[in-house]
Amino acid sequence: MVQSSKKVISVVPEPSLRRMPAYLSFSEGLLKKGQEFVSSTQIANYMNIDPTQVTKDLSYTSIVGKTRVGYEVKAMVDILSNFLGFTVLDQAFLVGAGSLGSALLLDDGLENFGLDIVAAFDVNPAIIGKKFNDIEVFHIDQFRDLAQEMKAIIGIITVPAEYAQSVADLMAAWGVKAIWNFTPARIKVPDDIVVQNTSLYANLAIIFNKIHHDREKEI
Amino acid sequence: MVQSSKKVISVVPEPSLRRMPAYLSFSEGLLKKGQEFVSSTQIANYMNIDPTQVTKDLSYTSIVGKTRVGYEVKAMVDILSNFLGFTVLDQAFLVGAGSLGSALLLDDGLENFGLDIVAAFDVNPAIIGKKFNDIEVFHIDQFRDLAQEMKAIIGIITVPAEYAQSVADLMAAWGVKAIWNFTPARIKVPDDIVVQNTSLYANLAIIFNKIHHDREKEI
Repeated sequence: MVQSSKKVISVVPEPSLRRMPAYLSFSEGLLKKGQEFVSSTQIANYMNIDPTQVTKDLSYTSIVGKTRVGYEVKAMVDILSNFLGFTVLDQAFLVGAGSLGSALLLDDGLENFGLDIVAAFDVNPAIIGKKFNDIEVFHIDQFRDLAQEMKAIIGIITVPAEYAQSVADLMAAWGVKAIWNFTPARIKVPDDIVVQNTSLYANLAIIFNKIHHDREKEI
Repeated sequence: MVQSSKKVISVVPEPSLRRMPAYLSFSEGLLKKGQEFVSSTQIANYMNIDPTQVTKDLSYTSIVGKTRVGYEVKAMVDILSNFLGFTVLDQAFLVGAGSLGSALLLDDGLENFGLDIVAAFDVNPAIIGKKFNDIEVFHIDQFRDLAQEMKAIIGIITVPAEYAQSVADLMAAWGVKAIWNFTPARIKVPDDIVVQNTSLYANLAIIFNKIHHDREKEI
C-alpha cells in the first residue's frame, strides 16, 4: 500500500491538451513583443473561448495567475514547453519514407518540438540508403536490430494504408511506447501503447465537405 | 420563396466525417483483395466502434446496404471518394515554403486526394523562385495578382505562428473559401470562410503527455 505517497498527475482532457500549443504559441508571441503579464480574458479572446475555460486548462499545469495582473508570460512559455514535452527529445523511428514520410523527415520543426527521428525504414530499393536531413533510410528487415540499438520509443507510420497494421505489429513487438499513425487506416495494438492518428486526408475531407456544402447553399 | 425545391444536403457531423477516410481506405483494401460485399459488423470490427454507428455514418452518403449481404465494396469506394471530394481537384495556395511548407509541396499524396497546390509564397529571398514538385515559390507581394489569375479557393498556412493572422487576413481579403491552418495559432476570419486547424505539434503534445503520464505511473 504505497500509492498515497506517489506523485499523482491528473489526466489532462484531450481538448484542453489540444489548446495548449496555441497558449504556448500566443505567449511566445507576447514574450517577443515584451509583454510581461497576460490576463485569462486576453488569452480567451485570442482563442475564441470562455475565460473560465482558459483558467481551467492552465490549472492542469503549474502555471499560477496573480490577482489583477494575470499570468506571467515568461513563466507560461517555460512551463508550457516543459509540460507539453517539447523540451525533452524523444527518439522516434519512421516507417514509410515515400512522399509524406520523407516530407516529415525534412521538417526540422519536429525536432524543435522534441521529436528526434533517428532512422527511417522502407522496402523500396530506390530509397534505401538515401538520407533525408541526415536521417538514413534502412530496409525494414533491419528494424528490430536498429530499434534495439537506438532505443526509439515512438514509431511513426507513413506507409500506404493497407500496410499500416503489419507495421504497427512490428513496432508493438519491438516495444515502442507510442505510435503516430499518419495513414487513414485504424490500427490495433496492445492497450499500453499510445496511438495518435493524424490523417491529413481526413482533415482535407472536412474542408472539401464544408466547401461543397456551402456551394450547394449558393445554388 | 424558392427554398423548398432546393437540394438539401444534411450537414455531416465532424466525427462521422473523420471516420469516412478510414471507411474508404478499408474498402479500397477489400477491393484489392477481391471481396465483393462487406457487412457493417465487419467494418465496425475494423474501426473498433459499434455497427449502428457505421450504419449511421454511411447513411449520410448515398451508399445503400443490402439485407444479408451488406454493402457493395466497389460502390463504397466510388461513392466515398466522391463524397469526400477526393475525385475533384481544388486549387490551393500555400504560404510559408519553409520546412513544413516545402514538405507539403513535396507530398504527391495530397493531389491524389483532390488538393492541387498551384503556387507557394514566402518572404525569404533564398527560397523565392525555387520549385518544389514543379510548384514555384513566389514573393508574398504577388499573392493577390496570382490569386486572381489562378483562382485558388483554398489557402494553406505554414508560416511561423506569429504571422498566421496576417496571412489569414490576406487570404480572406482575396476571397478564399477555406483556410487550412498548420500553425498552432488561432486565426480569426469572416464566418463564411471554412477554417481547418491541423497542428502536428498539438498531436505530438498529446503523445508526449500520454507517454509521460505512463512513465509517472511506473515510478
